[in-house]
Amino acid sequence: MALDENIVVLIGGVGGAKLALGLAQVVAAERLTFIVNTGDDFWHLGLKICPDLDTLMYTLSGLVDPETGWGRANDSTAALQSLATNYGFEPWFRLGDKDLATHLVRTDLLRRGHTLTDATACLTERLGIRSRLLPMTDAEMPTIIETKDHGALGFQEYFVRHRWQPIVTSIKHKDCRLAQLTTAARHALRNADIVLIAPSNPWLSLAPILAVPGLRAFLAGLPLPIVAVTPIIGGAAVKGPTAKIMSELNIEISAASVANFYRNMISGFVDDCRNEAFTANGLRILRADTLMTDLSAKTRLAREILAWIKGWTR
Amino acid sequence: MALDENIVVLIGGVGGAKLALGLAQVVAAERLTFIVNTGDDFWHLGLKICPDLDTLMYTLSGLVDPETGWGRANDSTAALQSLATNYGFEPWFRLGDKDLATHLVRTDLLRRGHTLTDATACLTERLGIRSRLLPMTDAEMPTIIETKDHGALGFQEYFVRHRWQPIVTSIKHKDCRLAQLTTAARHALRNADIVLIAPSNPWLSLAPILAVPGLRAFLAGLPLPIVAVTPIIGGAAVKGPTAKIMSELNIEISAASVANFYRNMISGFVDDCRNEAFTANGLRILRADTLMTDLSAKTRLAREILAWIKGWTR
Repeated sequence: MALDENIVVLIGGVGGAKLALGLAQVVAAERLTFIVNTGDDFWHLGLKICPDLDTLMYTLSGLVDPETGWGRANDSTAALQSLATNYGFEPWFRLGDKDLATHLVRTDLLRRGHTLTDATACLTERLGIRSRLLPMTDAEMPTIIETKDHGALGFQEYFVRHRWQPIVTSIKHKDCRLAQLTTAARHALRNADIVLIAPSNPWLSLAPILAVPGLRAFLAGLPLPIVAVTPIIGGAAVKGPTAKIMSELNIEISAASVANFYRNMISGFVDDCRNEAFTANGLRILRADTLMTDLSAKTRLAREILAWIKGWTR
Repeated sequence: MALDENIVVLIGGVGGAKLALGLAQVVAAERLTFIVNTGDDFWHLGLKICPDLDTLMYTLSGLVDPETGWGRANDSTAALQSLATNYGFEPWFRLGDKDLATHLVRTDLLRRGHTLTDATACLTERLGIRSRLLPMTDAEMPTIIETKDHGALGFQEYFVRHRWQPIVTSIKHKDCRLAQLTTAARHALRNADIVLIAPSNPWLSLAPILAVPGLRAFLAGLPLPIVAVTPIIGGAAVKGPTAKIMSELNIEISAASVANFYRNMISGFVDDCRNEAFTANGLRILRADTLMTDLSAKTRLAREILAWIKGWTR
């Protein structure tokens, strides 16, 4: 089976990166483009930090910490410890020393007037990544988490500082009107044969991407398969706050709810074989083992999804 | 002997920091103010780096690397190594991981609109330093080294990248007209009882301070002892390029030449007992052991200089 399609993946952080790594095993790197959530991005100590871009970069370049799925392997925290000990900074956001190199290079490029798209291209090129990683927008469009007891929180405050424990009442995307889909993302989508939606958190990681003005309409006009992969496995989230947030937003915790979240947008849905089967009007559903425990499982799932989609047009 | 004078020290990096540490042993911290050379400052990877301020901060807070006299003790270089290995940056300027914490905090404060004077006050306060460290100016006034074979070099390019090997033809201070003495420095000088000129490199470290518009005239109007300490010991520099530069600028390598460099400005000069004795019209000269090999030697020299100056007015 020749996999010569151009594939664009809408993607968040750790969960999505697993599928990204699988895809990278079965598709030529040049044919893979990732449009990455930047709603988690923030400025911290004067550094621009892009957690989802970093996770994907580190995963695809083999630098990622295999224990956590984010950050750099074998990283130290001498700078962070000095910030805390000598300068009284609360070290709630982990900044590894090696990781700092990424933030420094990116921030310097942005300060010199480069877009985040260009800065990311520079970083990925240096890391030897031949797939394209595109931020969903070059504008700042931070995700704001409205919570029951802590008011409005920036994403990292919610996710890292408060360990996603506050009860979410709604999720907003700031300065949304000023953001726009980048030329590079538009170009990638126009040349795509398949669009995948990674098994990232739909509300925290995909919703920000889909909130970029023009993206939903642009996707709707593309005559190609758009397929989402469930982040819900066995009626629960593999890791992180997906199920918790669904519960707080009064959404039934099921793959069907996720498919419903993407309704009118997707033509196919990859469900996990552990979930209760469901159907939806006009939606093709592949039931597969989506628990990507190791590289071979990631690769197998990527291959299975692509073969399934190819089958549609045979 | 009660040392209740207010002392202002014009000072550069490693050499001067030795005397600073000695003074800190014999004078109440609140009575000591350092006006520090910022001609060596530069922007590197988006970070504002102030080598002389850092050296003095680390020395006075006890964090300095005792081997080098600059940088932090027991520092690692994981970030720098990642910058080199992963992102292709030439690691010519050593950035320690702990050291990075300082650069990050300072840069963040500057980006938020604070002056270098305020940023330095914030850093020193966090480090528990009760003496005042004042940059010579809040403007950027980088020292430019004109060289025979490499053209004009930024200070750190000359000093670190080229290990002060290029032949110096002249030394310039960029954007000098826009710089001015800060209110804090002016206030400290107005309240000073004694001004010391540390045994730093006169041409590389003191000349930039003296080039700050208004400083020389301001000093000339102060009715108080101004005393310089020789950086030349036994007819040579203890360390660094002082003697080499004097030779390249066709200046005789002697303490007398240093005293002559400060002529019309100083009322006293501390010469090293190893140097050939000299006299200069109207200049009081103390001959002392100025080789500050350990803390007791630093303390002894500081005490001897201050006692000598006090004797003038008895």
